[in-house]
Formats: sequence, C-alpha cells, structure tokens
Amino acid sequence: MASKNKDRVKPQTLRGFRDFLPSQMMAREYLIDTAKSVYRSYGFAPIDTPALEYAEILLGKGGDESDKQVFRFTDQGDRDVAMRFDLTVPLARYAAQHIQELGTPFRRYHIGPVWRGERPARGRFREFMQCDFDTIGTTSNAADIETLLIINDLFEAIGVQRFTIRVNNRAVLNGLLEKNGLEDKATSVLRCLDKIDKIGRDAVAAEMQEHAGLNAAQATGILDMAQLNGSPRQILSQLDGMLQGCETGELGVANLREMFTTVSACGLPDDRVKLDVSIARGLDYYTGTIYETFLGDLPEIGSVCSGGRYDNLAAKFTAQQLPGIGASLGLDRMLAALEELGLVESRTTPAQVLVTMFSREHVAEYQRIARILRQSGIAAEVYPDAKNIGKQMKYADRRGLPVAIIAGESELETGTWQVKGLEAGTQQEVTTEDLVTTVFGLLPEPG
Amino acid sequence: MASKNKDRVKPQTLRGFRDFLPSQMMAREYLIDTAKSVYRSYGFAPIDTPALEYAEILLGKGGDESDKQVFRFTDQGDRDVAMRFDLTVPLARYAAQHIQELGTPFRRYHIGPVWRGERPARGRFREFMQCDFDTIGTTSNAADIETLLIINDLFEAIGVQRFTIRVNNRAVLNGLLEKNGLEDKATSVLRCLDKIDKIGRDAVAAEMQEHAGLNAAQATGILDMAQLNGSPRQILSQLDGMLQGCETGELGVANLREMFTTVSACGLPDDRVKLDVSIARGLDYYTGTIYETFLGDLPEIGSVCSGGRYDNLAAKFTAQQLPGIGASLGLDRMLAALEELGLVESRTTPAQVLVTMFSREHVAEYQRIARILRQSGIAAEVYPDAKNIGKQMKYADRRGLPVAIIAGESELETGTWQVKGLEAGTQQEVTTEDLVTTVFGLLPEPG
Repeated sequence: MASKNKDRVKPQTLRGFRDFLPSQMMAREYLIDTAKSVYRSYGFAPIDTPALEYAEILLGKGGDESDKQVFRFTDQGDRDVAMRFDLTVPLARYAAQHIQELGTPFRRYHIGPVWRGERPARGRFREFMQCDFDTIGTTSNAADIETLLIINDLFEAIGVQRFTIRVNNRAVLNGLLEKNGLEDKATSVLRCLDKIDKIGRDAVAAEMQEHAGLNAAQATGILDMAQLNGSPRQILSQLDGMLQGCETGELGVANLREMFTTVSACGLPDDRVKLDVSIARGLDYYTGTIYETFLGDLPEIGSVCSGGRYDNLAAKFTAQQLPGIGASLGLDRMLAALEELGLVESRTTPAQVLVTMFSREHVAEYQRIARILRQSGIAAEVYPDAKNIGKQMKYADRRGLPVAIIAGESELETGTWQVKGLEAGTQQEVTTEDLVTTVFGLLPEPG
Repeated sequence: MASKNKDRVKPQTLRGFRDFLPSQMMAREYLIDTAKSVYRSYGFAPIDTPALEYAEILLGKGGDESDKQVFRFTDQGDRDVAMRFDLTVPLARYAAQHIQELGTPFRRYHIGPVWRGERPARGRFREFMQCDFDTIGTTSNAADIETLLIINDLFEAIGVQRFTIRVNNRAVLNGLLEKNGLEDKATSVLRCLDKIDKIGRDAVAAEMQEHAGLNAAQATGILDMAQLNGSPRQILSQLDGMLQGCETGELGVANLREMFTTVSACGLPDDRVKLDVSIARGLDYYTGTIYETFLGDLPEIGSVCSGGRYDNLAAKFTAQQLPGIGASLGLDRMLAALEELGLVESRTTPAQVLVTMFSREHVAEYQRIARILRQSGIAAEVYPDAKNIGKQMKYADRRGLPVAIIAGESELETGTWQVKGLEAGTQQEVTTEDLVTTVFGLLPEPG
C-alpha cells in the first residue's frame, strides 16, 4: 500500500456525485422505506434491473440531446454499453422480456439510482435515485384512480400535512383542440401551454400565435378553457358543455368525473385533489391521466411526484401492446423539502443508548446488558474503549443519544446500572430487571 | 417511437447481469432489511458513496489482475472514471475525507451494488450486492468481539438454525511463524496454508517445501499447530504453551480468549463459534481477528459472511492511521442457500388480499374496502377490470394470495362481503365491521 505522502491520492468525489453521511442516509432510508410500505400495501412488487445495459436498449436512434448525457462506453468485451438514465426504459425492456411469465395486471415498484451527465446545479446531480411505481397491462380507469390514491397515501405516510395533487387528462386537452379545429397543431400548442406557470398567460398567448400559428381568438379560447377555475365538479360541468359531441373529450371528462367521485367516497379532503386543465407533461409520452403533486408549504420547488398514463410502453421491444400508468416520487427534491420543513429528524446514528465502558475487563457485562436492550427493540451501542467517562458522554452527546448507561466496579458488584437521561438531565440507579422499562421511559416519543 | 417490426430491438440483458423478478426481489429485500435491522440495533449507521469514482481512487497503480476487471472509461468531461468494484475502497476514501466530521469510533453499514467484469459463472455475476459493516477508529478487542456477536445475531435473525463462525487471529499465525524462525516467509507460508481446505494437508506440506523453502519438520510443525483440534479452550491452552515468550502470539491468544469468554457470557450456543488456527484470508489486508461463517446444512458453498481486522484502512488517501474491523454478508450466495434450504417464502407479490371487481361502476366501494384493510396493515390489491370472476380468482391463485373478497350487486346493497379463503377453501359472508378480523383469521402465520 502507498503510505508515503507523495504517493497519496487526494480523496474526492466526481463533480455532480455525492457521498451520503449517516444523517443524510438515514433520512433517505426513512423516505424509501415509507414509499416501499405504501407501494406494497397496494400489492406492488419490487423489481430490479441492471445499472448497465446494451446502449441500443437505452438510447434512441436519433442522437437526441438527452442521449448525450448518458454515460456510455465500450466494455472489456467490446460491447457498446450505457448506464441507465431512468427506470422507465429499463421497465419497457423488462416488461417486453418477462410479461408472459409475470401476467397482467403487473404492478411493480422500482427504487434505484440512475445516472445522467448533466451540468450539475443546485439540486441536480449526475447520480440520483428514482422511486417509481407502475401498473402495466390495463386501460381501466380504476388503475388511474388507484394511482391517485397511492400518491395521496404516500404523502400522508411521509407526514406532510398540506399538499395538492393536480390532475388532468390528455383526452380533455385533445378534445379541446379538436373542437377548435387545432388537432394538427396539438404538439406545438401544448408545448406553449406547458409554460403557463413559468411565463404567464399573455406570453403563452403570444407564443401560440407566433410559433403555433393560431389566431388571437383561438389562443384566447384555448387559454380560457385551460385556465378554467373552481371546484373539480364546476370545471367538469363547464367542460361537459364545451366538449359536447367530441368523443375523445367526453371520455376524458367521464374518467376524471369517476376519479373525483371515488376520491370523495374514499374520504380524501376536498381540497386535496385539483383539476388543472392546463397541465400536459411529457408531450410525446403520456396519453391519458396526468398527475403533479405540490407541497402546500413549498409550492415553488415544483412537482415532487408526477406521472401519468401511457398507451404503449414497450413498442421499441415488442409487438405486444402494453398500456400502463404510474408515477415517480422525486426523492432528492422531496428530501430537500422535508429538511426545509423540519419534517426529518436529523440523527447521525440509529443507536438510542450508549453503554459506556468503565472498566475494560468487564466487556462481557457491557455486551450482555446491550443485548438485553436490543432484544427489547432498543438499539444500543457499546463504547469500545475504557476512555474517561467524560469523553464517552461527550461522544453520546455529539451523536444525540438520549440515554447512556454507566457501571463501574461497585455497580457491577451489586448488579445495578446508572442510567443517565441525557435530554432530561436525570440519573438513576436501577437493577437489570428494571433497566428496559427505565430506558423506554427516557426515549423520545417516535415522531 | 419505433413500432415497425424491423426497427425493434431485442430485449435482453448483458452477459453476467440480471433482472430480478418480484419473487427474487422480495427475497432480496427481506434479507437486506434483516441485515439492516441487525446492524442498526448495534448502532451502525447507513452511508452511501457514488457508483462512479475517479479511476485513480479505486485502482492500484500496478495494473493488477483484478484492475482489469473494473469497468473503466473516459466520461463526457474527459475524466478517467471507474465503477466501484467493492465497498471497501470507497469506504477508505470516504473515511479519509469525512472522519473529522464523523468522529471515532465510526460504525457504518453500506449495502449497495458493485461491478466486476469477471467471467460469469454459476453464482458469479458482473453486478452484485455487497452488504458490509465496519467499525473504524479503534484497536480495542471489544470491537472484534462485537463484530462476532453481530454475525451471530444476523444469522439468527435470518432464521438459520445451524451455522458455525470460525475465528482466528493473524497474530497467532504470525507468532507461530516467529517461534519457528519463519517470519520472513510469512506470506508464502500463509498462502500455502490457505489452501488446506481445498487440497488437503499432504499437498500443503509439499507446497510449503517446494514454494516456501521449509524443511519437512518445519512444514509438519506449522501444520500441526494450524490443525489443532478441540474446544476453543483446549486449543487456546495448547497455544499458550507453543507461543510462550512470543509477544505477538501471546496477544493474539489473549484476544481470542477474551472473545470466547464473552461469547459464552452472552449465551451463544457452545458449538456456534470455533477456533480454526488455519484460516488466514486476505493476506495483504487483515492483520488481527479473522471471521468466516459456514452454514451447517450447506458447508460446501463456503463462507457466507467473512471479515476481519485491518490496521490502516486509508493509507492511500491520508496520513491518519485508521484501524478498523468489519465483515460482509455474501448476499447472492446467502440467497441461493436460503432458497436451497427452503427458508425463503416464494411470493410474487406483497399483496395478501385480492378485492375482485364484480361490477365496474362500484370501483369506489372496492377501493374503500381495500383502504380499510390497508389501514389495518393488510396489503390489498383491487383488480382493475370487471373481468369474469373465475379469471380474477385464477389471477389470485397464480399469485398465491390467501384471501379474495367478492361483492356483487346484492352484497353491495346489504353492505356485506363474500370472503374466500383460497388456501382453506372457505367462503363466508361478513359485514364491513367484521371484515378485518375475518381476513386476519385467514392469513398464514408470519414465518
């Protein structure tokens, strides 16, 4: 091993990549575990796919702008390979390959890292975690409704009090365009419309005329409809009128109406789910219901959970039509938000108790008492050296441990333990029998 | 999107890489969650490091054989980068970079994928999961003892009944060599000794003479000591005699003796931990205690959890001496073993109940009842289409769901539910009030 100074390598990570310290990682694990438990409660099963795939599996043919961000190289066997940049393309490949065995409806979640060589920026990294769930193989609106309920339950489970899920249906947008004779301009009109939150109504109207070739009345008409306001029920009945006779549009409205009725029946708060006719998202991809989720206390960070319905997931890989619907929790953005909202405990260790080491020769006693705590579900660490107790208490303090246990010769002789409540500032002597109850009394209530 | 046949890409994974189907992934998640909860109970905190690092961080200078297996390439920014091939080198870099902030003792676990371009073989893959825990910054034997207890608790928590942890201490081996005047031949002698399980005593004796330059008596002497048999207590007292006056050896024996005393005091079964003076492992790396773990019913698959003590983790990156000790669970090998031993439930979904969809217009009722189940901790999936009930029951059967719930018009009118126990072959009509209790009664006991 290199040990001379000149041979040393500077310890550093690549630009856009991150180490996670324990406190950050514990928050991540908490969020991931919460998402998993919600997905699982709806019967979604976990899958995983490789980090590396044949480049032709992951990439388009065109040399798109986004393809340039992919980490791509030639491996030892001269294969053209790439690191996955999302979990959707691998899902398409996976579904094409395994759907016969899996059967439909296939509900899966997939939580894992993806890589993009984007220019790093605040909150944007070259390695980040995706946290997706999808239902493959059904066109039933029941799955769209379920997706909405899952998003709702996810944020409730995370502990967010105020959040809004905005939904729309691409069929409504398409119907509106059809009724206005603009179906051939759908893509460019929707691309303009998608900017409404960022640049405002007037600028969008101008762009619609300049770039999409609409006249002023058409632009106003589309914008009036997209900006319909009121309760979902009110908006839906206005849309009824506007879309009468247009099959696409009427189906979109019917699906949305069923969704809102079910949401009410399931007891979600009235203002939880909003109908926002302006949202389009992922123009070339989504075909039906669309979701975005905003935090009531931090709307400015944008949607923290988005998704929608697509017609044909795996056309690149199979002739089998695989419709589906799903959404993705933005883990990094959500963690940043939880931190800002003070909804994440900042702990540097899972330990709750420090068993100090007063005399080195009694390690068996200290480990034995720690085992008794662990068997009751209390995480306990034993200090490994018989350093002076002041130092050990400092260590406990720095780590935010609520309880420390001390036993010197006299306590070990009488079979008792000094239990210090570090938050409460208390100290009491208890027998082994009373130890677990005493410690439980000193632990903070679980958040 | 490509949709014509000739444009289609064959869906396939790279050689040596794997998709995980839900049943495989659920077994992996179970094992990972179990490991996490044991590590956490001892106060070990999670960390993560990037999949990609500067190549000079991960690789030796020599162009070692193992370096050739690393996935290494030049990224978009012309950086020489590589995918991590283990979690130990990243830990060394991480510790060098962050130890001031983290403080010592630093207990961390790290569970994540690593990549090696090895020739794929049965049970050997190019992408696999490591599951490490380490204590950094202490030379205290108390940490070595704790590491042993963690390995023990880990296998107990996994549900393995019969397993043996073999321990040794490199100081004992070094002492034996010293006493025989062979300290300058340590590496070659230990390299021979390491093969004893594979090629047998006689072949090792021959190799020691041919390759390490020992005479027959020296080889016999070393082998006699390495193959000492009996209880740890018996072996230790024989070693006492053999190593008398040799400081290194005596320290090794003292540390092992303390370990066995503590293990007994903590109530581990007598035959759980064995002293095996022949194991050396990781010649250039480990310096003190060494661990290997074997399954009683499948010893032939080799050690499923191994580790040891090292003197100086991060010499490549920092002048700060960072001693440590840790071990790693062989996740893939362990999963293969659990499957063979029938210790993993083979489930394809976390769902426990299928709420069938009898009539499409009552989706709100079906989702409402599923929510009641979920709120009681029962995972429930709602079938998304009103397909014929026979088909839906077949779906439930194929997925191994123990319970299905059916409600047609008459049940919905009277507010009752038909509850089918698919394993028991029962059917009963219950009210919403009694539903949760009834379903709990039909679920299998948790394994």
